[in-house]
Amino acid sequence: MVTFEEIDSYLEKGIALLDAAEQPQELYNPIRYILSIGGKRIRPKLCLLTYSLFKDTIDDAAIYPALGLEIFHEFTLIHDDIMDKSDMRRGMPTVHKKWNDNIAILSGDVMSILAYKYMAKAPVDKLPEILKLFTTTAIQICEGQQYDMNFETAPIVTIDEYMEMIGLKTAVLLACSAKMGAIAAGASTRYAEALYSFGYNLGIAFQITDDYLDTFGDPAIFGKKIGGDIVNNKKSWLNVECTRIANGEDAQNWKSICSMGADEAQAKIAAAKELYIKLGIKEKAEKEIEKYYSKALSELETLPISEEQLEQLHSYARKITFRDK
Amino acid sequence: MVTFEEIDSYLEKGIALLDAAEQPQELYNPIRYILSIGGKRIRPKLCLLTYSLFKDTIDDAAIYPALGLEIFHEFTLIHDDIMDKSDMRRGMPTVHKKWNDNIAILSGDVMSILAYKYMAKAPVDKLPEILKLFTTTAIQICEGQQYDMNFETAPIVTIDEYMEMIGLKTAVLLACSAKMGAIAAGASTRYAEALYSFGYNLGIAFQITDDYLDTFGDPAIFGKKIGGDIVNNKKSWLNVECTRIANGEDAQNWKSICSMGADEAQAKIAAAKELYIKLGIKEKAEKEIEKYYSKALSELETLPISEEQLEQLHSYARKITFRDK
Repeated sequence: MVTFEEIDSYLEKGIALLDAAEQPQELYNPIRYILSIGGKRIRPKLCLLTYSLFKDTIDDAAIYPALGLEIFHEFTLIHDDIMDKSDMRRGMPTVHKKWNDNIAILSGDVMSILAYKYMAKAPVDKLPEILKLFTTTAIQICEGQQYDMNFETAPIVTIDEYMEMIGLKTAVLLACSAKMGAIAAGASTRYAEALYSFGYNLGIAFQITDDYLDTFGDPAIFGKKIGGDIVNNKKSWLNVECTRIANGEDAQNWKSICSMGADEAQAKIAAAKELYIKLGIKEKAEKEIEKYYSKALSELETLPISEEQLEQLHSYARKITFRDK
Repeated sequence: MVTFEEIDSYLEKGIALLDAAEQPQELYNPIRYILSIGGKRIRPKLCLLTYSLFKDTIDDAAIYPALGLEIFHEFTLIHDDIMDKSDMRRGMPTVHKKWNDNIAILSGDVMSILAYKYMAKAPVDKLPEILKLFTTTAIQICEGQQYDMNFETAPIVTIDEYMEMIGLKTAVLLACSAKMGAIAAGASTRYAEALYSFGYNLGIAFQITDDYLDTFGDPAIFGKKIGGDIVNNKKSWLNVECTRIANGEDAQNWKSICSMGADEAQAKIAAAKELYIKLGIKEKAEKEIEKYYSKALSELETLPISEEQLEQLHSYARKITFRDK
């Protein structure tokens, strides 16, 4: 069995070897930068993990698509950060902040092409299926980002709309990553689909956790400021749920909290947290995360894999769901 | 033999059928918009033209890659227009002007993915070669755009640097388009390479013509304002050549022209045109265009095609080189 440590090491070697060209450096330096400042590498790891369920070694058939997934994800971060006007990511300046918008647009564009460059190195007999899955997913991610932007000015966002948005923006890429490993390994459609559902549900749990930590994370561990979503009235899971269930006096209170400006940031954060706790939204979010996490695991039950393999997948799913940063 | 009119009609049908999704409309309306406001469709036409040199009918094997080329080209226009802060294209507001930067970034991103979606519909046995050619070209185009942006603040740009830049930004996509038709048709590597060179040289002639028309085009026909390159000190072929050959008093004159502001636009344009003519740069540009056009045609000599086919290619090459808008 391929261990998680081996997967980690294959992946970091692969990323270190990425052949981003040298010139023009204005174009390629930001790519090296964003790839070097880390991140959790969840998507390529999922791809290699599911590949290793059906294969005894990791090889190029999985490494290249895995790298393509990571490059694509980092591309979306660069462009999202321009659109969201985010100045910091992973404790470092974002690309458009460190350079400028034009550099960030164009470096991102190259990365989306590089993602396909690596996808196209998949084994020829798997290529059409891999490209189809990847392209469908990539388009969905853009749609998700558009819905997320639309939410900024939408007066009301329902929980269904929110779930659809995070499904597109976040969950489908984890789903695609988990399925891609299976496809590259030649697994049956049935197993590939089970892994897609595993990744999808894990992605939903992952995103609600993201929203949760933005409000209830430990400032000493979280790595970025707590409460950014509250200050910006971001339609997070907590925000959408609060709008849905707050009644009477609580609804009034919620309305005034939402109308507080950035100059009252700390008071706004404190008031929103208090209301979330009073209305049981904090606990509800925890239960929701648990629900999608369990759903994800249940998808693994039919897979023809060993106890150790199953435990390794469970362990990784736990790690990325029940995290503190 | 497939006639040019047939190619035109296949292409317009294909573009009309492009299955851009409906929702979210903020994402897909700009795509429909940019595809609907026309353009010369040079890249897909070249692809279908060269395909038809080796095949008696046009079919999906060529149509899909041809559409991919057009979509990719339009994507680059949307993002270039943001970076260049251009407000108008083809007499219409640019996407970022009609909507906003975020919409233009994201719609462009989707189009670059859609381009691959159509490329991936190429026949499986040709797919790796087509993807490799397309990806290499797409990366080169981004590099060309970066060099073009670098030129804005570069004190001096040499003719070699200029030629490399337009080679990357413009010529490789025409080259790729001409070669792709050959690959899709199963032509030999030798013929595919000859068509690549044909497209490349045609692309160089095309771009110098672009620069030429921006200064010496007929305002009544050209469709956009004459002299924009001069006003912005754009490192066009004419500008770069003028910097290279102007000496003594002419060099002084050129320096003062370049330092004139947008508030003296008409005087600046008139002075630059006069200097270009005095130094023989206008004629030299015409000769340069003729040179690359002839080079392009000479690449066709070894192809195993009929007189009529050759004449059809010549005729199209003439049309896009010796144009007045």
